[in-house]
Formats: sequence, structure tokens, C-alpha cells
Amino acid sequence: MIEDKNQQKTQLSDLGEFGLIDHLTKNFKINHKSTIKSIGDDAAVLDFKDKKIVVTTDLLVEGVHFDLSYMPLKHLGYKSVIVNLSDIFAMNAKATQITVSIAVSNRFPLEALEDLYAGIETAAKIYNIDVVGGDTTSSTTGLLISVTAIGEVENNNEVYREGAKPSDLLVVTGDLGAAYMGLQVLEREKEVYKVNPNSQPDLEAYSYIIERQLKPEARKDIIKLLKDLDVKPSSMIDISDGLSSEIIHLCKHSKVGCDLYEEKIPLDPQVISTCEEFNIDSTTVALNGGEDYELLFTISQDDYSKIKANPNFTVIGYMKEAQAGMHLVTRADTKIPIKAQGWKNFNA
Amino acid sequence: MIEDKNQQKTQLSDLGEFGLIDHLTKNFKINHKSTIKSIGDDAAVLDFKDKKIVVTTDLLVEGVHFDLSYMPLKHLGYKSVIVNLSDIFAMNAKATQITVSIAVSNRFPLEALEDLYAGIETAAKIYNIDVVGGDTTSSTTGLLISVTAIGEVENNNEVYREGAKPSDLLVVTGDLGAAYMGLQVLEREKEVYKVNPNSQPDLEAYSYIIERQLKPEARKDIIKLLKDLDVKPSSMIDISDGLSSEIIHLCKHSKVGCDLYEEKIPLDPQVISTCEEFNIDSTTVALNGGEDYELLFTISQDDYSKIKANPNFTVIGYMKEAQAGMHLVTRADTKIPIKAQGWKNFNA
Repeated sequence: MIEDKNQQKTQLSDLGEFGLIDHLTKNFKINHKSTIKSIGDDAAVLDFKDKKIVVTTDLLVEGVHFDLSYMPLKHLGYKSVIVNLSDIFAMNAKATQITVSIAVSNRFPLEALEDLYAGIETAAKIYNIDVVGGDTTSSTTGLLISVTAIGEVENNNEVYREGAKPSDLLVVTGDLGAAYMGLQVLEREKEVYKVNPNSQPDLEAYSYIIERQLKPEARKDIIKLLKDLDVKPSSMIDISDGLSSEIIHLCKHSKVGCDLYEEKIPLDPQVISTCEEFNIDSTTVALNGGEDYELLFTISQDDYSKIKANPNFTVIGYMKEAQAGMHLVTRADTKIPIKAQGWKNFNA
Repeated sequence: MIEDKNQQKTQLSDLGEFGLIDHLTKNFKINHKSTIKSIGDDAAVLDFKDKKIVVTTDLLVEGVHFDLSYMPLKHLGYKSVIVNLSDIFAMNAKATQITVSIAVSNRFPLEALEDLYAGIETAAKIYNIDVVGGDTTSSTTGLLISVTAIGEVENNNEVYREGAKPSDLLVVTGDLGAAYMGLQVLEREKEVYKVNPNSQPDLEAYSYIIERQLKPEARKDIIKLLKDLDVKPSSMIDISDGLSSEIIHLCKHSKVGCDLYEEKIPLDPQVISTCEEFNIDSTTVALNGGEDYELLFTISQDDYSKIKANPNFTVIGYMKEAQAGMHLVTRADTKIPIKAQGWKNFNA
């Protein structure tokens, strides 16, 4: 038999709004005692007893935050959850619930939204999150996803961007710059594909950095680890816009300065080799690339012994008095002011 | 002096994302003790002690939910808050915080977003809500607003869509159909304007219905009133999609049937006269028009004496056993099954 390449697709209009929500969310399970009422009423009802609640929201727009020519919808659904959970973890909190709203044009068949929700469901399962609400609507063009994440934290355990003190150590989890370099590879492949749609790309050598771009993870494990190590950071933020931008946030909110050591910035070997291939400075990528979803935090020097042996953590600098300013100390031992100039202007 | 009609507009790119959020939210004040940390960190932190929390979210898309040719941006900002608060009140809860995310194309100058946020700020002030977070991003086309609202309710005071019992009375607040007829007038004026841009519309006769469309209110007052009257509804929902659709939701969730009396449906005289002018059946408008943001609820017959003298409430029917079905009892005393067919098919 000849394969039917034009499989029947289901039009969204066949289901209607209520039918669509029911269909897409029917597999979502409730796991948290705090979720009293989930999808299906005017609002969700949550009960956190005597804990504090943290709330964050992010909007992902097609053509701005993602390109469906290389971002599979399942990965997009997964990533849209991750970017929000990362903000909850950056408060030293446990993520418990999300709401997911999407606006979608009628160029997407039902099967596309099923893929998107499969990714959302996978993230919800892995991170143990209840999906408790949302809204599904049509858009005149493109796809847009709005996620709100809710979490809980024991009183006095919450960590803000403010709170860092001079002489505190600046610590980062994981490694930096990979998501940005993954994007560069994907965009190069897209250009190659445009010229020759039959080309078969071999992306084996870029597997780590592409995964960091298409299927990032949020550092839930770090929140547990910090608790187990009995370390409460003095300030914390997640790295979504790039190390420079996040350091500036911590310093401004905490009213301190900072020395960041270039040689200490953790880079994966694949980031280094791909930067060489693209003739891009790897430090610049780490500082300005963004989308790493690692955690950046400060701790008292007294806590150094608790984290020093752990491979998840790299001490990359220390905080100073505000008037000392924020500087990158280069390998050549020169000091360059840290600015959030964005990618293009950084070397200007 | 000749008036300068080309006032200098500020491009969004001049401010950058962080500057834009700071600029637009600098006037927002915090009024709730439960708001521990607001805009400016990875997430907001809220503390509700021993109350339950309710959460709802809605997405408003240009070209789908609003038309900027007759919807002023300030009103749009106001309405985007109202539609969410209405869902919180429909849980018998108090609204306390919102997050607001917008995606906006670069055809909007800063001044347009200032108008939008002025409307959001006005709604926040009038309804005593703290704006605690959000996201501002670019879009490739048009404007999109995503609002998440959070509220609190004393334990056991929450009211769901389920809970109505046979013989319970069906009660609605205010009057119905006005927002839909306001939209019809505005769309007619838009067509007139296209033909003759110099026409000066006289909309005096439609002031109430246009206000219901452009600047709706949510029934915060009803939640207080029900408490003062010591009435806890057995089920409740807000009227966003039209009376038919909401009755079906209550009946399905509560596993009951319903008789709705056509002659009891509350209509404003302006709705009746405009329906006559447009040659549309006013009952059909009330049943299917939507965007009324009134509350629809059921109460035990024992509570009837508490609400009967109050002009805010109209008893429009009563609940029956599920097998009796859901019916509209017409003025001619015939029974028509209630269906959520949407506007166009209702008379088919």
C-alpha cells in the first residue's frame, strides 16, 4: 500500500472551545493536597495552610521567543512550563500548580495542540505540578502561550534578589551559554535547509547544546540540595537573560557591587568547541546568551565548606561594596565593567 | 498657534523591556497584607494564612476579543481586569492580586501602553487589587493581554458550579444582553464611519449598552451583599458566554435540570428598544449574547425571604431533577430545550 501522507487532521472548530479544553486536559492528574479544585470552574481553589505562596508568569510568542521550523511543539510545551518553574525555584520555593493559556490560529490542527499539551503534561509529570486552569482562544496569527506558575515556601525560607552582602560568594549551578549556541546551530541548519531541503544534517556533535535550547530543565534538584546542605542563599535569581543581566539584578536589588572571574565561568566543552567553530567569544556567550535556566545565588563565606565539594556548584566571584561597582576580571587580569548591553553591542 | 497633530511618540525600543515594565508599573501601590513581595523579583510572594486561594486566568486577543477601532485602550485595560475579577467573585471569593502580561507589536508607541495601564490601574484601585507581576514582550502582530487573578476565601465559604439541588431557585444579578447590543451598535457605527469618516454619531440613546460593552463592571458588591444577607449560594458562575451556556454549566456540574422562565429574564429598557431597532429577539440576546459579567447562582428555597426584596436579584427559574432536562418556558407557556448553540444557530 502507498502511504497516505495526508493524514486526516481535525479542525479546532469541530470541537468548540469547551470541547477543546476538555480534550486537551483530560489526562492531567492532580497530585497536590493543596489543589482543592482544578480545571472546570470559574477559578481554581488552592489551600496552602500556613505557607507563603509564590506566583510568576511568562508569555511565549511565536516569531519572538520560538521558531516552529525547528522547535517541535512537544518541546515547546515542555519549555513553556520550565521557564516558569525556573522562576519559582529561584525564590527557593517548591512549584505546585500552573495555569496554561494559549492563543492559536486556525492553521494549527488539533493534533498540533495535542503535541503541545503532551509536552506540558510531560513537564507537569516530571516536575510534579498540577495543571489547574487556563484559557484557550483563537488568534489572528500564530501561536502564543501564557503560563502562570504557583509555588509554596515555608515561612522565612523564601529568597529574594535582595539580600546579598559584601564578601558573599557568587555561585552558579551547571554551565552557561549552551542554549544560545544550540540556537546558533539550529538557525544555521535552517538556512542550509532553505537552500537544500534534501540535506540531512548531522547534529551529533551538537547534541548537548541543542537539547539545552529545545528541552531545557529547571533546577528543582538544587532547591532540595540546598535544603539538604542546610544552605540558605542570601539572594538568588534564575539565568534567563544571561549572566551579566542577572548579576546586575542581584547587585542593584541588594545594593552591592561584584567581581566576576572570567576563568571561573563554567562552560561545557561543546560550547567551547562550537564557539570556536562560529568564531564567537565563549565568555561573551555565557554573559549574554541567556535561556540557561541555571540558578545564580550568593552565600555567606561561612557556608563555603558546605558547597565546595559539590559538582553542581561553581563559585564565580564575590560581592563587594556598591561603590566598588560590578566588574568582570578577565583572564588577563584586567577589569571590565559588567553591562547588560545585549549580545550585539557587547564587544563594541 | 497651529496645533501640532503629530505629537512626538516614544518608541518602545527606546526603553527596553525592564525599563518598560518599571515605567508602566511605577504607580501601582500595594494595599493587601497578603502581598509580601510584588513586581521586581522572579516571582511574587503572597501570604494568605489559613484561607483558601482562588486563581483564574483569561487571554484577550486583538481581532478576536476586542477591536481597537472602537475600544479605547484605557477601557481595554480596565475590561481585561474585570473579566478576571468576575471569575474570582463567582467563587464567592475576595479578589486580592493580579498579574498582567502583554504582547505588543511595535506599531504601538509607549503612550498607547500608558493608556492601557492607566485602565488597569483604575480597575486595580476601584476593586482594591494589587498588581504583583507580569511579563511584557513584543509580538509580530497586534496586542494580546493575559491576566491572572488571585483571590482568597474563608474556609467553607467557596462556591462551585456544582452544588445546586432540585427545587433550588435560579437567581441572576443585574440585567442581561446589554453588552451584546452595545457591540452591535458599535459595529454599525464602524461601518458608517468607513463609508463617511466625517459622520458625527449620536450615541446618547445607547449610552448604557455601550458602557456595558466598553466598560463592564464585576459584581464585587454582590459577594459582600450575600454575606450581609447570610446567603451562601449552593452553586454559582459568572455570565461571560451568555445565560444559556452558564445554565448548562451549572446543571451539568450539579447533575440537575432546570426550568428557566422567559418572562422573568431581566432586560434593561435600552436593550429592549435596541433589539426592536435591530429586529433581534431580546430573549435570544440575553440567552446567547454574553459579556454581561453578572452572577448566576442557585439558593435553597429557605433563603428566598432573604433576597426577595432586593433589586439586585431576579429569580428566573428553579432547578429540577437531571432527567427533567433543561428548558426555557416561553411567554406562550411552551417548553424549549436550552442549548448552547451560539448566537447564529439559535433560531435555526
